[in-house]
Amino acid sequence: MATDRPMQLGMIGLGRMGANLVRRLMRDGHRCVVYDVNAGPVHELAAEGAGGATSLRDLVAKLAPPRAVWLMLPAGVVQSTLDNLVDELDRDDVVIDGGNSFYRDDITRARQLGQRGLHYVDCGTSGGVWGLERGYCLMIGGEDEPVRRLDPIFASIAPGAGSAPPTPGRTRDGTAPHGYLHCGPSGAGHFVKMVHNGVEYGMMGAIAEGLSIIKNANAGEKEHTVDAETAPLRDPEAYRYDIDVAEVAEVWRRGSVVGSWLVDLCADALARSPELSGFAGRVSDSGEGRWTVHAAIDESVPAPVITAALNERFESRGLGNFSDELLSAMRSEFGGHAEKKG
Amino acid sequence: MATDRPMQLGMIGLGRMGANLVRRLMRDGHRCVVYDVNAGPVHELAAEGAGGATSLRDLVAKLAPPRAVWLMLPAGVVQSTLDNLVDELDRDDVVIDGGNSFYRDDITRARQLGQRGLHYVDCGTSGGVWGLERGYCLMIGGEDEPVRRLDPIFASIAPGAGSAPPTPGRTRDGTAPHGYLHCGPSGAGHFVKMVHNGVEYGMMGAIAEGLSIIKNANAGEKEHTVDAETAPLRDPEAYRYDIDVAEVAEVWRRGSVVGSWLVDLCADALARSPELSGFAGRVSDSGEGRWTVHAAIDESVPAPVITAALNERFESRGLGNFSDELLSAMRSEFGGHAEKKG
Amino acid sequence: MATDRPMQLGMIGLGRMGANLVRRLMRDGHRCVVYDVNAGPVHELAAEGAGGATSLRDLVAKLAPPRAVWLMLPAGVVQSTLDNLVDELDRDDVVIDGGNSFYRDDITRARQLGQRGLHYVDCGTSGGVWGLERGYCLMIGGEDEPVRRLDPIFASIAPGAGSAPPTPGRTRDGTAPHGYLHCGPSGAGHFVKMVHNGVEYGMMGAIAEGLSIIKNANAGEKEHTVDAETAPLRDPEAYRYDIDVAEVAEVWRRGSVVGSWLVDLCADALARSPELSGFAGRVSDSGEGRWTVHAAIDESVPAPVITAALNERFESRGLGNFSDELLSAMRSEFGGHAEKKG
Amino acid sequence: MATDRPMQLGMIGLGRMGANLVRRLMRDGHRCVVYDVNAGPVHELAAEGAGGATSLRDLVAKLAPPRAVWLMLPAGVVQSTLDNLVDELDRDDVVIDGGNSFYRDDITRARQLGQRGLHYVDCGTSGGVWGLERGYCLMIGGEDEPVRRLDPIFASIAPGAGSAPPTPGRTRDGTAPHGYLHCGPSGAGHFVKMVHNGVEYGMMGAIAEGLSIIKNANAGEKEHTVDAETAPLRDPEAYRYDIDVAEVAEVWRRGSVVGSWLVDLCADALARSPELSGFAGRVSDSGEGRWTVHAAIDESVPAPVITAALNERFESRGLGNFSDELLSAMRSEFGGHAEKKG
Repeated sequence: MATDRPMQLGMIGLGRMGANLVRRLMRDGHRCVVYDVNAGPVHELAAEGAGGATSLRDLVAKLAPPRAVWLMLPAGVVQSTLDNLVDELDRDDVVIDGGNSFYRDDITRARQLGQRGLHYVDCGTSGGVWGLERGYCLMIGGEDEPVRRLDPIFASIAPGAGSAPPTPGRTRDGTAPHGYLHCGPSGAGHFVKMVHNGVEYGMMGAIAEGLSIIKNANAGEKEHTVDAETAPLRDPEAYRYDIDVAEVAEVWRRGSVVGSWLVDLCADALARSPELSGFAGRVSDSGEGRWTVHAAIDESVPAPVITAALNERFESRGLGNFSDELLSAMRSEFGGHAEKKG
Repeated sequence: MATDRPMQLGMIGLGRMGANLVRRLMRDGHRCVVYDVNAGPVHELAAEGAGGATSLRDLVAKLAPPRAVWLMLPAGVVQSTLDNLVDELDRDDVVIDGGNSFYRDDITRARQLGQRGLHYVDCGTSGGVWGLERGYCLMIGGEDEPVRRLDPIFASIAPGAGSAPPTPGRTRDGTAPHGYLHCGPSGAGHFVKMVHNGVEYGMMGAIAEGLSIIKNANAGEKEHTVDAETAPLRDPEAYRYDIDVAEVAEVWRRGSVVGSWLVDLCADALARSPELSGFAGRVSDSGEGRWTVHAAIDESVPAPVITAALNERFESRGLGNFSDELLSAMRSEFGGHAEKKG
Repeated sequence: MATDRPMQLGMIGLGRMGANLVRRLMRDGHRCVVYDVNAGPVHELAAEGAGGATSLRDLVAKLAPPRAVWLMLPAGVVQSTLDNLVDELDRDDVVIDGGNSFYRDDITRARQLGQRGLHYVDCGTSGGVWGLERGYCLMIGGEDEPVRRLDPIFASIAPGAGSAPPTPGRTRDGTAPHGYLHCGPSGAGHFVKMVHNGVEYGMMGAIAEGLSIIKNANAGEKEHTVDAETAPLRDPEAYRYDIDVAEVAEVWRRGSVVGSWLVDLCADALARSPELSGFAGRVSDSGEGRWTVHAAIDESVPAPVITAALNERFESRGLGNFSDELLSAMRSEFGGHAEKKG
Repeated sequence: MATDRPMQLGMIGLGRMGANLVRRLMRDGHRCVVYDVNAGPVHELAAEGAGGATSLRDLVAKLAPPRAVWLMLPAGVVQSTLDNLVDELDRDDVVIDGGNSFYRDDITRARQLGQRGLHYVDCGTSGGVWGLERGYCLMIGGEDEPVRRLDPIFASIAPGAGSAPPTPGRTRDGTAPHGYLHCGPSGAGHFVKMVHNGVEYGMMGAIAEGLSIIKNANAGEKEHTVDAETAPLRDPEAYRYDIDVAEVAEVWRRGSVVGSWLVDLCADALARSPELSGFAGRVSDSGEGRWTVHAAIDESVPAPVITAALNERFESRGLGNFSDELLSAMRSEFGGHAEKKG
């Protein structure tokens, strides 16, 4: 099912996502020129049919104008790469930022590139390590013309309409059922992707908490200290279940209201290791959840679930420790309560 | 693909879920006898091939022992129905409660039925109005023997292995990949279903908040009053997007990390009515979310996301009003702040 | 300012609070008979003028009927003590439970004692280790007559009207301005005390979080790793303050809206040890916060602040760990994210 | 107790707080020159002994250099006033911003004024309408020299050491026990005041929720609909209390752990109107709570309590409505649940 609209694309940044984007595009008949600061992945993709480039300048030279260059880079190096790249580009070329940039930077960058006659498209890309096989969900921001021009690229990267049954109540056309969407002007793509990740935090938190409550359904079996510092469990007989959470995650994959890719992934992780060995429970956050909460506050939209999920991640890394010590100190002050050992 | 293990089942309660369970069972070759306090649905299902019963006694009489009788009733009438039913049943018959009973009631009921030589199986049933077509996810509690005996029934009701791709890391056997799971002794099924609904609350909250943040991405376009009672939006230029949330929900259905049945349903609801006309935003809760939080607290498991989602539902129904008035009253007391009009 | 209505009281349980209640009562001219399972505090208080008892029976024998016996015991031993005590008592005697019993137990106990012609009064007692000096805030439940009968006792234990300026808008009489209140029938006292402690959790959480935010106002000074797992601080120059939180707590004690006894205690704890050495941040909870959230849920009253404070305590003790591991596992599954070391 | 270090101060902005600051300063022997865009309060204060000014220029002219000018203005007009004012000032004059400016603006303004040889001091001022009588808690940021120079002013505005008993564990000197504190360089004062207000939100939320739970302790008395949309109250007999929340607030004022100025204010508000008539429960937020949460997120400090309190205010104003409608829409989609009427 190769595309009937083959295009040329330059890809800068060949980490897991960048490399797989290139593979997915080449599979569909597009021609890619690739560059990375590490030569390894360049050679690897060249062996698979891509054009390898040895520098930004080389990459640009190997593309016919008007060019399309996709950046798939850590947020921290986008600006410096962009600064170097724009000097090599010509009027009407397009740069796509497919990483997780903050949407406000998109607004600035689009303005700066616009002043040179260049176009800037921000493209939130979801799909993780599975995207090569499943396709990537694309949330796109920028001017109409360059976004339209890149349509064959987006169509090949996205999962396509066949990847999910049609929405019954839907009567409109558009690209959304194919898995990509032009959300609005510059920054709109990364804005939607940012909130997407905020939603992801909340969904992940809900699933993790639920499975944890199920895992602890045997709380009534445990010895409980009886002292003034410990809340006794009033109904231990109601918590005498040893439930296999790996099987619960698996059964929720079919027919249930919580069915979701994240539950699929939980089932997989728990199938591999029911005790989740190898994880200490220090949950990173890479910015989008924070920015989502910030946006919610700026808009005065209550977002208690997403915010709770963000705070849960901070707690998981021990960042509430001073606060907790202060709570213990207050308890000691007013009640003479000594802290219990762990 | 009719079952090669046809069984007989009595169904009491022919609301949307009970009737569709019967249809799904009959499709698969099982024989059903049905009863409801309303004659209408009894006749309807009789016309589709079920045996109609005019009373609990009649239903029992039409089933060969050892019998299996499934209750699909509102939580409030389960006990009284059960009280009447048990007098008609014989030793070794099984009663399945497929509704949303509180799991602690299961423990009591199983003990009571056990004293009469009857079996009681609790079966949390997820799938809503779509279950006829998609199958229902079943979370089952009770003794091993009767649960095993009912396996052909559960297998026909559940979605089956083909309804989702296999979990890559999974090496075990079991029924979970078919969409039903014997979770443990009496109450374990409803316990898992209860937490399932708690997870559902959290996931729903995350999705709803996220789409709401996206819908309000035009906050910078609105007129803002400048007074001491109103927090000014410092960066209005960063909130000038008019994003089509219906299209966002649609695009998230394919390839994204938040892909889920709930996002599918959002896309459908927004496709039918982008402004969600017909909904005032008073969100009911039917008990399982409350019980989930209660269980989390009893177990000392932090569940901030699920709890936030529950509180959000209470707020949606205006139940925080006295608390809010008190906040306004305090502000008036210390700062002379008058309340702003809506 | 000795009472002009001296009474006799038996005190069972001479921990910090029980012993100080006795001292405060004796100071005001009441006569106390005291008992504890440990002889030490009995002798100590006898040396200060109390009548010492060697057993429950001895204590009862040393009081003239109708007797008043106050229990100041850990929740876990109230029932067994009560079971032994009631056999010694006579019709019309009153038992007061001044500890932190669950209010529903009060309802049961009052009914049981009532069947023997005895009275039961529940009395939530706040004041901690400072109560001897400051007086205790009393929240009382039970029948009118015995509560009225005990008025001289309550009046002596409570702080008295002079301990705070009068409420300007108040025109009613009553005991509340003296620091004790008959809240309603059996259980009402402990219900109000339970919620009081829930409020305490929320206030403590707010203060601890705030001082922690201030302590971390130097976040921009710290080295920040730049990688895909870490949210970069966009505005490090806005977080370059080294603020002395001990001084902040002290300044908030005077004239500010957050002025409170809890801020006083923070100031004291931080004055003694600015780094809160001796505390690891494992914050206990002794039941009332849990019960408060349970009551809020039963009543459908949103209580997000109090619930957040409760969950914060669970997190502080590492009880969210399985949930956190699951979050890391999901991140690994979809994004290949490895967990960062602590 | 007039100051022995009388100074001259210009006050711009004679709203409730500005006017009372002037009165408190004059009472203590300082000389004030006052200006407001409205002539009324200027005449009023002139009648009380202040020097009245008819313009910024006039105000500056009436002060002897090096001058001290205090701005007590809504955040929205500080910048424009400052822009006009600085042209009138001379090298080494000090401007104090006593309002609720965002601390990052202070950093900018201090730099701008510094370039002209002027000093800028930010001073978070807490005390509300009660400050004239109680004194104001002052949180100060800026360079050492001008802050030291203004010490007599701060000392007169603050409540003074006598307004609260000394902190027992305290051994240090400093101004904090007098109710004012130099917190750090420019912005540090407003930073601490910002977090102070965040703490205030959390404490207010805790108190309001608690009193609301107590008010609803009669939930078991109410008629409850029994249907699939409504969670039944399992233990109505445990919620049959009619508790007088006004009296509860009053009793908590003395001896309890939650004793605080905010509880004092609740008691007053409820004494005036037990049903809080005149309040609809639409709770404003004026920015500091939002900024506090933003700072917590930037610093990666979990602040679940303060954040919950902020979200609660958004909910109180109906701002979660689209989100709530979406929740109802999802429930309708998967379960056929119709929304219940209010």
